[in-house]
This record gives sequence, structure tokens and C-alpha cells, in this order.
Amino acid sequence: MAKIVIALGGNALQSKNSAPTAEGQLEVVKNTCERIADISAVGHEIAVVHGNGPQVGRILLASEAAKDVTPAMPFDVCGAMSQGYIGYHIQQALKYSLNTRNISYPVLTVATQVVVDKNDQGFQNPTKPIGPFYTEEEAKALVAEKGYTVKEDAGRGWRRVVASPIPQKIVEIDAVKQLWETSIVITCGGGGIPVVENSDGTLEGVAAVIDKDFAAELLAENLDADVLMILTEVEKVAINWGKENQQNLDHMNLKEAVQYIDEKQFAPGSMLPKVEACMKFVRANPTKKAIITSLDKAVDALNGKTGTVITFA
Amino acid sequence: MAKIVIALGGNALQSKNSAPTAEGQLEVVKNTCERIADISAVGHEIAVVHGNGPQVGRILLASEAAKDVTPAMPFDVCGAMSQGYIGYHIQQALKYSLNTRNISYPVLTVATQVVVDKNDQGFQNPTKPIGPFYTEEEAKALVAEKGYTVKEDAGRGWRRVVASPIPQKIVEIDAVKQLWETSIVITCGGGGIPVVENSDGTLEGVAAVIDKDFAAELLAENLDADVLMILTEVEKVAINWGKENQQNLDHMNLKEAVQYIDEKQFAPGSMLPKVEACMKFVRANPTKKAIITSLDKAVDALNGKTGTVITFA
Repeated sequence: MAKIVIALGGNALQSKNSAPTAEGQLEVVKNTCERIADISAVGHEIAVVHGNGPQVGRILLASEAAKDVTPAMPFDVCGAMSQGYIGYHIQQALKYSLNTRNISYPVLTVATQVVVDKNDQGFQNPTKPIGPFYTEEEAKALVAEKGYTVKEDAGRGWRRVVASPIPQKIVEIDAVKQLWETSIVITCGGGGIPVVENSDGTLEGVAAVIDKDFAAELLAENLDADVLMILTEVEKVAINWGKENQQNLDHMNLKEAVQYIDEKQFAPGSMLPKVEACMKFVRANPTKKAIITSLDKAVDALNGKTGTVITFA
Repeated sequence: MAKIVIALGGNALQSKNSAPTAEGQLEVVKNTCERIADISAVGHEIAVVHGNGPQVGRILLASEAAKDVTPAMPFDVCGAMSQGYIGYHIQQALKYSLNTRNISYPVLTVATQVVVDKNDQGFQNPTKPIGPFYTEEEAKALVAEKGYTVKEDAGRGWRRVVASPIPQKIVEIDAVKQLWETSIVITCGGGGIPVVENSDGTLEGVAAVIDKDFAAELLAENLDADVLMILTEVEKVAINWGKENQQNLDHMNLKEAVQYIDEKQFAPGSMLPKVEACMKFVRANPTKKAIITSLDKAVDALNGKTGTVITFA
């Protein structure tokens, strides 16, 4: 039996082929939770981290669009709301999938704050677009009025951009550690609610997007997990992706991963952060492993039959 | 040392004198958490239940107002989002207030589903108005299209009304029981996310508002708490409220409470459900007590100096 931190990608929460509604999400989540329950059924202990990109984007969009009716929400609060929203669906569906397998673990979503460094270089050059499109005039007014950073987005208009800082510390980690002994915990949703530590010891929410794979990696380290499992759309990581000589990888060690990254084999914002998170985990825990595979192949991958395994040596 | 379930009223989250923004809420919550930390500092174990009326109302309002931009959220999901939003603020502020008192308890918000009975009589005659005002035409279209129940609201327009059913079961209670031994748990926010149990064992979110005082009562029973403490705007419950012969009550037993209710001393939707929740708690636990007082007087009330104490005999 292994202790596993599972990071769920966007495809585990939402289908590309259906409307981005809460009802549509719940349908996809039900299928996702069947696969997570399969992992639990073969005896593994699990913590679940999920992304929140499209969801928090829509919460912010609704909040901004309705701002003449009711005050708009700060971005950290939108993140907290997305944790409640997505966690509730996973919690409800996963409990049912476990019940049908006669597994009695509680499933629990915990609102989770993740500390980032005020001086993270991400804050110097924010790159992550969030929220609605603005005209140039609106965008410049927001810069003056609220101190936002804005960027022109490929001819489609202007958008606010925020930093994607490195997660430093999971605020609620002690309680999560205790809980995960006996429950399936859904935590660090959307990479966590980003907060900075002020000199007086207070935490303060900031507008930022923490990469959920890096948050899952930090969680896996903190929980002393055996496996960091990143579930995405593909069964295996590939090099020479989409080319004639595409090669799907069963395994890579740190040295090979570094070489592939030097060769720019992995797309930034897509496979690259997943591979980097896995590398960070095995670098910190040379006897452990990370796996990248698809949701449907998760159990097979844990049995060594598929997926891409990342190890230290 | 007592084990206490604290139910926070709307005034613990938001000031009547400031804009209903997230920033405004956080300021009020910081003061509220100072008072909760005071209770923890004198050695009591605490679970916190909060209301969410104005907050979930605004989330729904924003969601409906923005529905041409992004799909509107079902009401159960709005409730889950409000748990994330409010829980995050309490969790952040309370942890700081505890730290300054050298108390090291973790503080944790858990998304909480509360089962209600499909056949609860509240569903036959929904009375709780939620969301935006509609014209009669819009309201009738929503009845036809979505099956909403709508009511004309005192000449101000039409609103959707939902049931306020009695809470039957806290889905995540096992994990909450475990957590509250070592943490301050924020749970059953807004009375809990209302769900019904289908015959196939699945839970399904419903549009309903569970009274947070009744949810706190159920939680206090489940946790075998010593005290159910309902914090509101007044220091003591009064009879003949606002009249020349107003009498503030130090104590009432079940028999007296029944008599006052017969006399219609307590306003429905205001003091009445608080008194009823306290009565339910002491009826189920005749050796225990419930207290209704204000946030600022909570510690004094626990020390027997003020507040209205409700006991069985």
C-alpha cells in the first residue's frame, strides 16, 4: 500500500465538449471519482489536489460582470470560493464511489492557504491572465485605480495578469497531516489560496495563481507521500511530441529529464511544470517516485503497467 | 474546560455601517476572531458555525446578473462557495488571533453537506426569499422554465423562495469529530450545503436554506458538546421586547421557554429559531446548557456573569 498525492488536471473536472456549467462539472467529477475510488480500492491512501483555472476564471468573470449590482470579489476570495465549489462536488461524488466499493473513509475538503514569497520574482513580471477582457482605456483605468498589471492579449483585448509564484508553505498542513491518516483529504485546491506573510505575522491574500502541480509536490513532500501522481490527458509523457519520431516515455530519471528540458521537449504551462514538479519531488526524496499518466490509466500505472515514471536515478 | 459549539450571527461577519465587500467582511471577521480567541484562551474547545445569508445572496445575485457572460450557478454550489469564502476569512483571522495568545491549535474550514428530508414540510411551502428581484413576467418564466417557486415581495417585485428544512444529518460528521479533538473546526457554514439522499444512495444538492442555529444545534449534539452558544446582537434574550416592561432574561428553563413562545415573545426568523435551537439542545441533553448572548460578552457569559442561559429544568 502506498501513500499517494494525486493532482487532477482540468480534464478531470470539465469536459471540452459540454457547457462549462456546475451541472456539467458534476457529471465529469462523478466519472473522475470512480477512478479515484479504484485507486483507493486497491488499498492506497490518497490526498487529492485539483486545478481551478476555468472555474476561478468564471467566478471572477461573474463577479466583475455583476459589479454594478454587488461588489466584486478580490481574487484570493474567488480562489477560496472555487475550493468550496470544486471540493464539494468531489467530496459528494467520491463518497458515493467509495460507498459502492464498501470503503468507509470519510472524504473531506479543507480550505487551504498556501504561503508565497512577497519577493518571488513572479511578482516582478506577472504573466498569468485572469478575468475578463477590457478595452485599452478600461485596462489603463484599472492600472491607475487598482494597481493591476495588464497586458494586451494577442489582439483579443487587454487582460489583467497576475504572478504565478512558487508555493513555500501550506498553512493548514498540520491538520491535513492528521486528517490524511484516516480520511481522503481534498486540499490545496487550485494550488491553494495564495497568501503572503506580513512582518506582524498576519497572512494576507494576494492576487496570484499557484501552479497546482507545484502545490501538489509540496504537499507530497510535507505528507511524506510515497508517490506523487499527476493525472492529465495523456497516458505517457512524450518527446518529439507530434513528430514522426515521437517517443512515449515509460521512465525518465533526473538526468534525462534535465536533458529533455534543455532540448525544450516539454511545453511551458503544460507538460513542463508537471515534469518539473515530479523532478522536485524525487530530488527531495531520492527513494520515491512520481508518475504522470491519464486518469483512466492511474491504477495500471500504479501497478507498473503504463504511465511515465520519474525517479531520481 | 468546556467543549463549545459557537454559532455566529450575521453581525459577526459584516457591519451594517460599511459596504458589503469582502474587504469589509475581513475587517469585521478580524474583530470577531479576537473574541473567539478569547474563549479559546480561557481553555475551551471550540467548533464554529457561521451564517451566510447576505454572502450567499450576493454570490447568487452576481451569478444571475452575469448569466449572459458565464453560466449561473445552482444554489447548492453558491452555498459551497460561501463556505469557502467565509471559512477562509475566519481561518486566516482566527489563526492570527490565536498566535498572538500563544495558542497553537490549527484552524480548519471543512466543506460540509447537511442532509435534509425530501419530504420536509418546508418543501411544500417555501418561504425563504433568495437572489434578485424579478418582474412578474420574468418570475413566471422562471416558474415555467426551471420549476422555481416565486412570491411577490411586499411591492418590491418578485423573488424566488426556497424551503428552510430541518437539518437531519451532517455528512462529514466523523471527520469533524476527529478534527475537533485537536483543531478549531469551522463547519456547517450557512447551515451546511443542503443535500437530499436519493434511493440509490447518492446525495444531491437542493435549493434550500438550512437555519444555521439548527445546524449548530445538531452539530453540538453530534459532538457531545457541553455548551451550545449562539452569539447575536443582544447581550440577553428579552420578553416584552421594546415595551416599557421589557425584561432581560438571565435564565430560562424549557417550561418557561415554551410559555414565552406561546405568548409570541420571540420574533420568527430572528430570536425564535435561536431559542428553539437552544431548547432542542437541552431537551436532548438535560444536563447541558445553551447560552444566547452577544459576541463581546461571550467570555463573561461562559463565566456565568451575563447572557441568557437555557437549561432543561
